[in-house]
Amino acid sequence: MDKKTIVIALGGNALGNNVAEQRVAVAKTAKVIVDLVERGDNLIITHGNGPQVGMIQKGMEYLAQKDPTQMIPLPYSVAMSQGYIGIDLQNAIKYELHARGIDKKVSTILSQVEVDPADPAFRNPTKPIGSFMTKEQAEALEAQGITCMEDAGRGYRQVVASPMPKRIRELETVRTLVNAGHVVITCGGGGIPVVCDEEGRLVGSNAVIDKDNASSLLAAMLGADFLVILTAVEKVAINWGKPNQEWLSDLTVAQARQYIAEEQFAKGSMLPKVEAAIRFAESGKGRSALITLLDKAADGISGKTGTVIHA
Amino acid sequence: MDKKTIVIALGGNALGNNVAEQRVAVAKTAKVIVDLVERGDNLIITHGNGPQVGMIQKGMEYLAQKDPTQMIPLPYSVAMSQGYIGIDLQNAIKYELHARGIDKKVSTILSQVEVDPADPAFRNPTKPIGSFMTKEQAEALEAQGITCMEDAGRGYRQVVASPMPKRIRELETVRTLVNAGHVVITCGGGGIPVVCDEEGRLVGSNAVIDKDNASSLLAAMLGADFLVILTAVEKVAINWGKPNQEWLSDLTVAQARQYIAEEQFAKGSMLPKVEAAIRFAESGKGRSALITLLDKAADGISGKTGTVIHA
Repeated sequence: MDKKTIVIALGGNALGNNVAEQRVAVAKTAKVIVDLVERGDNLIITHGNGPQVGMIQKGMEYLAQKDPTQMIPLPYSVAMSQGYIGIDLQNAIKYELHARGIDKKVSTILSQVEVDPADPAFRNPTKPIGSFMTKEQAEALEAQGITCMEDAGRGYRQVVASPMPKRIRELETVRTLVNAGHVVITCGGGGIPVVCDEEGRLVGSNAVIDKDNASSLLAAMLGADFLVILTAVEKVAINWGKPNQEWLSDLTVAQARQYIAEEQFAKGSMLPKVEAAIRFAESGKGRSALITLLDKAADGISGKTGTVIHA
Repeated sequence: MDKKTIVIALGGNALGNNVAEQRVAVAKTAKVIVDLVERGDNLIITHGNGPQVGMIQKGMEYLAQKDPTQMIPLPYSVAMSQGYIGIDLQNAIKYELHARGIDKKVSTILSQVEVDPADPAFRNPTKPIGSFMTKEQAEALEAQGITCMEDAGRGYRQVVASPMPKRIRELETVRTLVNAGHVVITCGGGGIPVVCDEEGRLVGSNAVIDKDNASSLLAAMLGADFLVILTAVEKVAINWGKPNQEWLSDLTVAQARQYIAEEQFAKGSMLPKVEAAIRFAESGKGRSALITLLDKAADGISGKTGTVIHA
């Protein structure tokens, strides 16, 4: 079997809502990843951090309520979530390798992803983060320039921008470690969002980067063969939930674009995954993206299931 | 000038007590580090995390008070502190390199340090962590098997063991990146303490590893030339605070041991630094440890100041 370089994007929701759930989740994930290691592939693992960064931000909010000097901006919480998740993910993969007698290193890299301060997403923040507030609390934050929004009848929440990733800052670190034979965990939570100021200084940005978009860019820049976006369904479908629902096994970029034009994919759910898959598939010759379930990753890479999107 | 491999251990206290202080501190630290980069040295940066991990643990405690499923064990807080500190330290060094026109990568590695579960320190936990409690709160924790102690009349606190580091788990990752020309930030907070169970699984340990001890082991295992322990004084002294106080510029391991026998160095302060310096100095031929101020690091490495400990 030919050796491939594969970027695997894990969902933050699949990693659980607390330490106990995370440990169970990473053990399951590690088996899938080491199955791929056994194929001989180079693996780069990315992951979401929705529930985890929410938990950390909430703890830091409580702290700041008692001591305002301890206010922790969002990018630091993303950095913390990379440590919180990375450590369990790394150790679970390392243990699974050890249990199968495979001598391979696993490394977790603190990862930043540059965004463009002129990205239109900054003028229209849509991604809710942190805890729910009353209208009065939200208005007090708005007066400080922080955007808040009513969230589905459950109260008010801060909303931040979700800009497009422009540059994986630690790309060469990832490449160096992959070339040295490591499984590399990177771009946790879509990466710590940063903007580069006029003087070349990286400054944390109060934003959240979609982890599938960051993974797509990472895979393209690394020259990976495969981008695997793991999700809650085995395949992408059209006519979702209708009598004529149809599972898709193989899609060209042109077909995928046609379905997007027909509004076949749900915004904030399957649509961004398909878009991230398209961007990778058209980033270079011979590149394919796969959308499937965690359990089906190996079968998907072998062409047996999942939805493959290619040029 | 001959190119050296240097491990620099920064104190957690020197990194400030909040985001604003940390940003000021890392900018100052970065100048010193890039001065050494300009000499052509390979640099590995380690750092303490006392105030920072305390802050994170406190936030996580508040969270667990509201939602007990969100109880975050100490090793996760150490992992989070590596992200929280690493990101600012990395970006400050990268910016200082950029400002001086130096093209060099800077990477931060999630780092674990293995300890021996049979370490006698586990039978005698002494390191206070987390927030102050009443006697009743402490007794409730003790009933759960968590050791607490009265702390200098200020209330009760949890105490954890401070075992000796046995193995830097990410040593090869550090080596690979140093060889690729990176400045590497690692072993933050002394490393995430882990024990390896019978099945080869790494499990977080409720302990705190002294960052100078971890740095000494790291430097020895890397085969570094210099271990620089930065502290609040320019030189080590004997007869501290007495009329016959004497600053020391150069110490053999044998002399240092003699002064330790005379109880010249304060426990929990200069003593562990001198001990960590001794362990590195005797770990291999031509290895020296330096104890000095941040500002004096370059002068110290050039032999102009600080206290050098060598075989």
